[in-house]
Amino acid sequence: MEKINIGLIGVGRIGRLHAMNLKYQVPGTRLSAVADVFEKSAREIASQLEIPIAEKDYRVLLENKDIDALVICSSTDTHAQIITEAAQAGKHIFCEKPIALDINEIDRALEAVKIAGVKLQIGFNRRFDPSFRKAKEMVQSGKIGIPHLVRITSRDPAPPPMEYIKVCGGIFLDMMIHDFDMTRYLLDEEVKELIAVGNCLINPDIGKHNDIDTAIVTFQYKNGAWGTIDNSRQAVYGYDQRIEIFGSEGCIQVGNKKPTEVFLSGAEDTRSDKPVYFFLERYNESYIDEMKHFIHCIKENKEPAVSGFDGKMAVVIGYAAKESLLKREFVRVASHSSDC
Amino acid sequence: MEKINIGLIGVGRIGRLHAMNLKYQVPGTRLSAVADVFEKSAREIASQLEIPIAEKDYRVLLENKDIDALVICSSTDTHAQIITEAAQAGKHIFCEKPIALDINEIDRALEAVKIAGVKLQIGFNRRFDPSFRKAKEMVQSGKIGIPHLVRITSRDPAPPPMEYIKVCGGIFLDMMIHDFDMTRYLLDEEVKELIAVGNCLINPDIGKHNDIDTAIVTFQYKNGAWGTIDNSRQAVYGYDQRIEIFGSEGCIQVGNKKPTEVFLSGAEDTRSDKPVYFFLERYNESYIDEMKHFIHCIKENKEPAVSGFDGKMAVVIGYAAKESLLKREFVRVASHSSDC
Amino acid sequence: MEKINIGLIGVGRIGRLHAMNLKYQVPGTRLSAVADVFEKSAREIASQLEIPIAEKDYRVLLENKDIDALVICSSTDTHAQIITEAAQAGKHIFCEKPIALDINEIDRALEAVKIAGVKLQIGFNRRFDPSFRKAKEMVQSGKIGIPHLVRITSRDPAPPPMEYIKVCGGIFLDMMIHDFDMTRYLLDEEVKELIAVGNCLINPDIGKHNDIDTAIVTFQYKNGAWGTIDNSRQAVYGYDQRIEIFGSEGCIQVGNKKPTEVFLSGAEDTRSDKPVYFFLERYNESYIDEMKHFIHCIKENKEPAVSGFDGKMAVVIGYAAKESLLKREFVRVASHSSDC
Amino acid sequence: MEKINIGLIGVGRIGRLHAMNLKYQVPGTRLSAVADVFEKSAREIASQLEIPIAEKDYRVLLENKDIDALVICSSTDTHAQIITEAAQAGKHIFCEKPIALDINEIDRALEAVKIAGVKLQIGFNRRFDPSFRKAKEMVQSGKIGIPHLVRITSRDPAPPPMEYIKVCGGIFLDMMIHDFDMTRYLLDEEVKELIAVGNCLINPDIGKHNDIDTAIVTFQYKNGAWGTIDNSRQAVYGYDQRIEIFGSEGCIQVGNKKPTEVFLSGAEDTRSDKPVYFFLERYNESYIDEMKHFIHCIKENKEPAVSGFDGKMAVVIGYAAKESLLKREFVRVASHSSDC
Repeated sequence: MEKINIGLIGVGRIGRLHAMNLKYQVPGTRLSAVADVFEKSAREIASQLEIPIAEKDYRVLLENKDIDALVICSSTDTHAQIITEAAQAGKHIFCEKPIALDINEIDRALEAVKIAGVKLQIGFNRRFDPSFRKAKEMVQSGKIGIPHLVRITSRDPAPPPMEYIKVCGGIFLDMMIHDFDMTRYLLDEEVKELIAVGNCLINPDIGKHNDIDTAIVTFQYKNGAWGTIDNSRQAVYGYDQRIEIFGSEGCIQVGNKKPTEVFLSGAEDTRSDKPVYFFLERYNESYIDEMKHFIHCIKENKEPAVSGFDGKMAVVIGYAAKESLLKREFVRVASHSSDC
Repeated sequence: MEKINIGLIGVGRIGRLHAMNLKYQVPGTRLSAVADVFEKSAREIASQLEIPIAEKDYRVLLENKDIDALVICSSTDTHAQIITEAAQAGKHIFCEKPIALDINEIDRALEAVKIAGVKLQIGFNRRFDPSFRKAKEMVQSGKIGIPHLVRITSRDPAPPPMEYIKVCGGIFLDMMIHDFDMTRYLLDEEVKELIAVGNCLINPDIGKHNDIDTAIVTFQYKNGAWGTIDNSRQAVYGYDQRIEIFGSEGCIQVGNKKPTEVFLSGAEDTRSDKPVYFFLERYNESYIDEMKHFIHCIKENKEPAVSGFDGKMAVVIGYAAKESLLKREFVRVASHSSDC
Repeated sequence: MEKINIGLIGVGRIGRLHAMNLKYQVPGTRLSAVADVFEKSAREIASQLEIPIAEKDYRVLLENKDIDALVICSSTDTHAQIITEAAQAGKHIFCEKPIALDINEIDRALEAVKIAGVKLQIGFNRRFDPSFRKAKEMVQSGKIGIPHLVRITSRDPAPPPMEYIKVCGGIFLDMMIHDFDMTRYLLDEEVKELIAVGNCLINPDIGKHNDIDTAIVTFQYKNGAWGTIDNSRQAVYGYDQRIEIFGSEGCIQVGNKKPTEVFLSGAEDTRSDKPVYFFLERYNESYIDEMKHFIHCIKENKEPAVSGFDGKMAVVIGYAAKESLLKREFVRVASHSSDC
Repeated sequence: MEKINIGLIGVGRIGRLHAMNLKYQVPGTRLSAVADVFEKSAREIASQLEIPIAEKDYRVLLENKDIDALVICSSTDTHAQIITEAAQAGKHIFCEKPIALDINEIDRALEAVKIAGVKLQIGFNRRFDPSFRKAKEMVQSGKIGIPHLVRITSRDPAPPPMEYIKVCGGIFLDMMIHDFDMTRYLLDEEVKELIAVGNCLINPDIGKHNDIDTAIVTFQYKNGAWGTIDNSRQAVYGYDQRIEIFGSEGCIQVGNKKPTEVFLSGAEDTRSDKPVYFFLERYNESYIDEMKHFIHCIKENKEPAVSGFDGKMAVVIGYAAKESLLKREFVRVASHSSDC
């Protein structure tokens, strides 16, 4: 079968990761072009990975008739615009999360995709993590009966630079957004309402940018089940990414991934590894698998498992959490979205 | 040294447990009398454990000059009255939780104890669990730096009979009361405010008695740290009693206790035990150790580590949780208690 | 039902343990007499546990018509003689391991028991450990198909005093004897032949007494399955008591018991407890349960699950191991016993 | 820096794996030619991986001046001859284990390598497994003091086809050879003598080819420490690859790798994954890392960490084990090798 020609926009950390995966790990694709506003970065990665085309302006890629699909890894504020133009150019689209920080912008981008009839997949890679996927399949197949409570622990090893904190949209839209998507994924059920608490326990400077570094959201699904998510910008004991799902017939627990299986027992205690360092290590396989899924959907003309609506809903829940934190009261998620 | 003479009031399940422990596991005591409104039960246990005196009326024990201390295991509604009378009779007092379901009653009982100058220890046995005690010591010695989040998972294997549900005061005052005490114990810090959610996911009949079977309380300590507690009246996978404490320098996790260390690996998977059945098995050692501590405090003239104030505060927090659930808003714990 | 009257002979460490258990943990018994060549020790324990009779000479207990059964915890060199006399006196017998260090002595004692028709149970307490018992039941019920390999890891936290090393009969008859019994227990199958290796890696002084401190025995069962046992007199990381049984349909693993379920995760690693200190802690339940079983067998007129023959066979295998170590060749176990 | 040009000989299962890794996972290399006696296979893989040259005769690769190094994955009986010719052609050599089944052949090949002064690395990939490497580093840095006992558990999920059994050289030279290398790697110490036992418990047909499917080797290092290895051709509960190293100051344990971190707790028990399927999954990273190491050694002109001597010694120990099994006695490893 013909290879799918990919153009990749934005070669920052996550863009480079996708470029490497497209080049080496995803059969049936050809990474034929990259674009980045820092043209030098685009040229460097093109040289390193033997990619024929390297551009400053992503529009050159849109106009390239040989390119079948675009992988959008540029800064968040450009996502919606590029999605819209890419859809109009008839390209299939993989876009990193979030689609945008403005719900109306998201709606317009999704409308363009709908009209063009192209594929759109949002980069909620954790859905493709083998452990979380297995947990979800267990829920689906009734292994724990009716779910009662979903608990997501999601704690980063270290906070991002303050420059990033300023522009990322806050902990709910930048960090917990992954967990909001996970809650919807695990139970195939929408969140009805939530209440958020949090403050700055790690670094008071984060508070100066109207953000928090420690947050807990408690929510209820439309079917009556409950969920809690806790985030911390700094877990010195390692990237803590665990999930528990309690149900009427049992309980699923997903533990952390560790770099080795070595235990050292001495006169004091038994010691084992802390979890793998951060998301690149922890979710390594999921980044490959989400891209394989995207290519598969293009080839087989199927709808990607992470839709534009999924991308929107995580943002919608994020805004509900922001509002709840501010008002100190329960906020209904629906109130943030006309059609959900 | 002289043995401490104990009179035990109420020989239901927990009363029998304390009687067995006092007889066989706690050196330096003599279980010299039991009383129970069901005189036959008192006589049976007396015969079985070779206890000289068995009475219907606990007041006979109060009047017995040889008795140094009373262990109160009668029904909750009698606790405050017996404490008051026992204090006036100059007996040291161990009383099962809760002291009472009415704060004013509690205050009056504590006042009587204060005036009499006798020892009073409340039966928050979990403080004496070796794992939880070790966790607390780790927090105290700074092993995890400044605590940020305490998470308590507390799920029973099966709901109590509906008759019990009717009179127990509700999930917050009957079941989560242990966890409220644990939150204060672990951090030596008071709860400032909380928000409670919950509903009936196990058995709708519980709802008919204005109670819930699934509850989550999120709270903030006065020092700014956070906590969450989740309760379920039915965890089919076993009595789930876990604690996690996240801090600036690390994380403590307390797992469940299992009856054996056997793992069976077959063509499908690896299988291991579910947790030990219920509180008698899980907290076996703690029941012995709390009683040893009580006897030790009497002999050494020390204040018991679980005070009447501790007993009161767990109830105060319980009422705050009830109010929060009803009002669907944050409730300050202080508002339920004039002096805390 | 009538209580069984017990006389206990020898109040050293293990004797005191059995005395405590008989007094407090084993219903249906009365510990009515103790004897010890150190009369003062006998009197002390009698006073402490309110035992009516304390003697220097065990024969006084033999002559006491009220005593139904004897628990023999005296030094090994006295076991066979006391068993013989006790059997002749018509007493049921619980005897600590080993029965004797001389096979002929063992045979004579077992013959006396046979003639008298009394019960005899040998103190291989580990058969009553909940984890090992569960493992054995899994083997019996076919959970792992046909067993192929039994692996026993048995390592003490610290070597005994050199005085004990001198008289204990060597590592195979003193320490590995428990593991030899375990091999027979787990598979209900006799050992055909074995090969032993070992040396002094812990303390060269042990070698001066013609003993070793590190030993590995590899053996074959009569049915063709294999086994290995490794012993060390000093595992600084804690009392290491593990078993693995590999079979055609799966594998059973029994891990170590730990004092708490606490895990501490920090910037370096995750730390958990070392195993419980030594045999009194590790096998606490098994000491109680073996005694309950003994009493049960007396009351119900059943044969104890750990027979005199079991007691003999562990010694027989021990001698085979000693011979193999010396000769550096395979030794058939049968060659050490006329009737097995 | 210039890329290293690689020619790969033999494109069976392991050859294809190395080809994939060289193409996608090992920077600084160019896989420029493949050869296979089944020319069609060579052409297929060349087409799939865009390798310019595909040949039937490996000698064409030897004559190619552009090729810097050869990766030998052909059948075992061709290894020594190709090593010799490759060395004479001045190519660096990576060769799969074993070098040969004949010690003299091995000696001649190693002599040719020595004369030519080219690099030679043998494919004992497990040395590059992150867990085993960490265990070795812990031993080296004294974390467990003086090692006393190394225990290697190495059990395959299913036996190979009978056709393979016939030609593989037997369980000691085909399967346990990896474990023999591991014993030398972990302690940097030679094996002095060993005793082997084993039989056919899995499939009697294996016995018809004078081989066994279940084997235990107990050995002593020259420094007095001990080791045991057990192999089974069929562990239905999964590929069991564990190591324990007991020392004077502690113990290292390396557990199995599992595909997910999911635990399912239900009314019966808690269930978790069996280990990853087989060596390709278990040792995935080690295959990449051994090749990176080989390339690194070429570029930096260093000696590969797995030398020709290492390759020879594993075979030497294998023959000692074969002899011991046959003679039922201890065999000194030195007797199988003039210079070790």
